[in-house]
Amino acid sequence: SSPRSLPPVCLSRLSAQFCLLPSRAGAAAAMDGHGHGDGRQPMLEKGPPSHRERHFTAGEVVRDVIMGVSDGLTVPFALAAGLSGASAPSSLVLTAGLAEVAAGAISMGLGGYLAAQSEADHYKREMKREQDEIIAVPDTEAAEIGDIMAEYGLEPHEYGPVVEGLRRNPQAWLEFMMRFELGLEKPDPRRALQSALTIALSYIIGGLVPLLPYMFISTVQDAMLTSVGVTLLALLFFGYIKGRFTGNRPFLSAVQTTIIGAVASAAAYGMAKAVQAR
Amino acid sequence: SSPRSLPPVCLSRLSAQFCLLPSRAGAAAAMDGHGHGDGRQPMLEKGPPSHRERHFTAGEVVRDVIMGVSDGLTVPFALAAGLSGASAPSSLVLTAGLAEVAAGAISMGLGGYLAAQSEADHYKREMKREQDEIIAVPDTEAAEIGDIMAEYGLEPHEYGPVVEGLRRNPQAWLEFMMRFELGLEKPDPRRALQSALTIALSYIIGGLVPLLPYMFISTVQDAMLTSVGVTLLALLFFGYIKGRFTGNRPFLSAVQTTIIGAVASAAAYGMAKAVQAR
Repeated sequence: SSPRSLPPVCLSRLSAQFCLLPSRAGAAAAMDGHGHGDGRQPMLEKGPPSHRERHFTAGEVVRDVIMGVSDGLTVPFALAAGLSGASAPSSLVLTAGLAEVAAGAISMGLGGYLAAQSEADHYKREMKREQDEIIAVPDTEAAEIGDIMAEYGLEPHEYGPVVEGLRRNPQAWLEFMMRFELGLEKPDPRRALQSALTIALSYIIGGLVPLLPYMFISTVQDAMLTSVGVTLLALLFFGYIKGRFTGNRPFLSAVQTTIIGAVASAAAYGMAKAVQAR
Repeated sequence: SSPRSLPPVCLSRLSAQFCLLPSRAGAAAAMDGHGHGDGRQPMLEKGPPSHRERHFTAGEVVRDVIMGVSDGLTVPFALAAGLSGASAPSSLVLTAGLAEVAAGAISMGLGGYLAAQSEADHYKREMKREQDEIIAVPDTEAAEIGDIMAEYGLEPHEYGPVVEGLRRNPQAWLEFMMRFELGLEKPDPRRALQSALTIALSYIIGGLVPLLPYMFISTVQDAMLTSVGVTLLALLFFGYIKGRFTGNRPFLSAVQTTIIGAVASAAAYGMAKAVQAR
């Protein structure tokens, strides 16, 4: 059977912008990963094995680890390679690299945690607004249910009973509008802190890989060569794993992840050389 | 009226993990931003002004710029401050900072672009799989429509006509399942490259802010103090703007964004000091 599939969006802080594309994939990933606590759970339990299987995906923790590690492998690696290119001493490359890892981990962890709180606030605000509208302009909101259904070629006589059914049950109606009109799922605050910590820790672990050689090899050129070799292998490995978990061709994912790291370090190297040349 | 509201998720690569939370908010943001080309457009056009207004949000370009700039302001700033703490010369702080900006921009731009392609592939795969299932096990898929409806307290006699209506129109049925069962929206490939370039460029611009003082002030301590002052002001400003566009309390967003930058730079500073002390 085909590999369990997760949308690749947002598996890396470096591809965060993907959540801005016209897609619910990132959220679908979260949702699929969230068998418990999301509205689809009843369906999953009722669904036949093939469907339960389709919705089975890597846990969020695994995704957080992959995301943190592969990001940690990229930027600190590129920075260290760049500084080595600028013939900085190993000790300084290490200092800069570890400083970047600390900064990146804090930013991802803290930034992520605060973003989770904002997301929860946003959900509450939207829910309140939707609730007020259901009370204030019920006919308008009811018409919107029809509008959503009509997009799928359904006729008023077909969706009419659904509209009436929802109107009889305001709480269900609110939940229906939150999910199908606004496309919002109830956030899980507990998850926020855990996710932030997991990603921050994984970023540190990933970031240490390219930096370790500089701890033990004093000759910066040798340290750099070792770091490049070790990190490119690690990028291939994690790119493959990432591909597995995102349901993409793992080898393609491995190659792409490695190319990003290589190009980024080449850019950092070139930039460092250029600045030195001033 | 309350500010136009966008979910704050994924507005920063540093909060990427938010797409992994059980929420469609990130996607909803994208969708809302995507009046054209997303399934909701017909509804928006039919909807009354209040609703068209509610779905009006900042363009994706604006979001990409905010995301890139605020990220650029954070990590390069922290790195520069950290290295200054390790009493590295201004030239080297600048070298490291610009190398990080180059690496970060490439990673975000290229990583984002490749992630967009993967997302498009993922959508195609899921659509194919869903289509095959609609052909192979139509009754199972039809039952899933009912399962989704039943979650909202709807009775079989209420959603029955909807199920039949969708069965009569396989294309609409497929689209319905993609969106309401799998929570996937058709990605926009053209948008991918534009988004990647916008974010990369914004990251460079944001990253230059904390580094400029090091270009003109040779005394590293003076350069650092100037950089810290300028960057904290910029973080306050962009945090406020971000809050405006994400529908969060702008002042809270300003303070949080600034705190993240401050804590990250403190961590980088402490790390650099610690490494030097070895």
